Amino acid sequence: MKKHLITTEWNEDDFNRMFLPGIAIDAVIFGFHDQRLMVLLLQYKNTNAFALPGGFIMKHENGNDAAQRILKDRTGLSNIYLEQFYTFADISRHDTSFFKKIMKARGMKPTKNHFLLNRFISIGYYALVDFTKAVPTTDLLADECKWHDLKELPPLIQDHQQIIQKALSTLRQDLDIKLVGFNLLPETFTIGDLQNLYETILDTKFLRTSFQRKILNLGILKMVDKKMTGAAHKAPYLYKFSTK
Amino acid sequence: MKKHLITTEWNEDDFNRMFLPGIAIDAVIFGFHDQRLMVLLLQYKNTNAFALPGGFIMKHENGNDAAQRILKDRTGLSNIYLEQFYTFADISRHDTSFFKKIMKARGMKPTKNHFLLNRFISIGYYALVDFTKAVPTTDLLADECKWHDLKELPPLIQDHQQIIQKALSTLRQDLDIKLVGFNLLPETFTIGDLQNLYETILDTKFLRTSFQRKILNLGILKMVDKKMTGAAHKAPYLYKFSTK
Repeated sequence: MKKHLITTEWNEDDFNRMFLPGIAIDAVIFGFHDQRLMVLLLQYKNTNAFALPGGFIMKHENGNDAAQRILKDRTGLSNIYLEQFYTFADISRHDTSFFKKIMKARGMKPTKNHFLLNRFISIGYYALVDFTKAVPTTDLLADECKWHDLKELPPLIQDHQQIIQKALSTLRQDLDIKLVGFNLLPETFTIGDLQNLYETILDTKFLRTSFQRKILNLGILKMVDKKMTGAAHKAPYLYKFSTK
Repeated sequence: MKKHLITTEWNEDDFNRMFLPGIAIDAVIFGFHDQRLMVLLLQYKNTNAFALPGGFIMKHENGNDAAQRILKDRTGLSNIYLEQFYTFADISRHDTSFFKKIMKARGMKPTKNHFLLNRFISIGYYALVDFTKAVPTTDLLADECKWHDLKELPPLIQDHQQIIQKALSTLRQDLDIKLVGFNLLPETFTIGDLQNLYETILDTKFLRTSFQRKILNLGILKMVDKKMTGAAHKAPYLYKFSTK
């Protein structure tokens, strides 16, 4: 079993010796599967509560490195594409009822100075991963780490619903400006795959011919091969993203 | 003289009783004047060091409310238009040499546990204010608070140069998507004023006719009056931003 950086028994001082106090990172990890946009969530047994994967920044660690470390722990993937999108710092997010519930469900004592019961601000990152390559992995407190359809989300703790919505609206904005969508696809893909992805994220439909023209005109795709389907005359071309 | 929330003699514990530990806010306050984009900076005597206005989040305060409070302290303005754009959390920003210099220049002792010498992450906000209404006001440590031309910035402490660049690139992106530019103008303005503003922020030139057509087609401007110039036949129309 994986050794965790932290134990559930830590009080405030234990925590503060290793991590920056009062600062969390929450990650909205997007995957694309079966024409659905998926998000990775942790579940806690006996609580019916779901949460975004997250973690903390070590005393001698850059914030962005902490985010990469946390994402690697939850997906097994290195060098994940990620964007920091917003820092959530409302007092109202300091709702400890959920953590008290989990701690009790695990036979832990929610002592007054337990680090989980402090006020945290949370730096939100969204990540785009290749669904076929990620290996969802639980953390210290969770019982399960699974993909969920963004359109059928379970009840989420604290402001995690709001964090996901903000991540999605940022992703939609970034899709054109930064052309980030490719990170959700395998290395090679057809224009049809790409159109499905755009349509799913933006929740809209495009005309096949105009989508194809617009994307090819950007000059960022490189044709690599024909997809082998058995029906040669129908085989669509495979492309990959071509970095300058 | 304005009473400050904080004193320069505070150690870590004093600070942590009132504020969230290790979290700062830095504000890039933009103003538009004389066809130049200006930014508000603090200066410290005998140091030749300049810095963005900033502050901290109180224990029972929302992050965004703290930003509004800090902006009001530095400009005298309430309900400022602001956008949180990025949280800076690199270790390299933990460069205390500047604070030690200031403290010495003021006859203060840079004791080991002085709160200013801790590692801080900083939540970056940019603010758009009406240049004619803002009243720049110094903070506890600074000797001067003044507007500077964005194109002629003095030497800045820590990562403040990087924070300004990121604020500017976000503002440029937001200009079209969120139509935020109006916040930099007085309540009424001509299409020419608006074009100057866009050209200055985006550092580019537009054709007068096509800019006018594009902006008027958005349907967000309301004609209010003719500008009185004495030459009636040349007087341009005055507009104001029309919220739906």
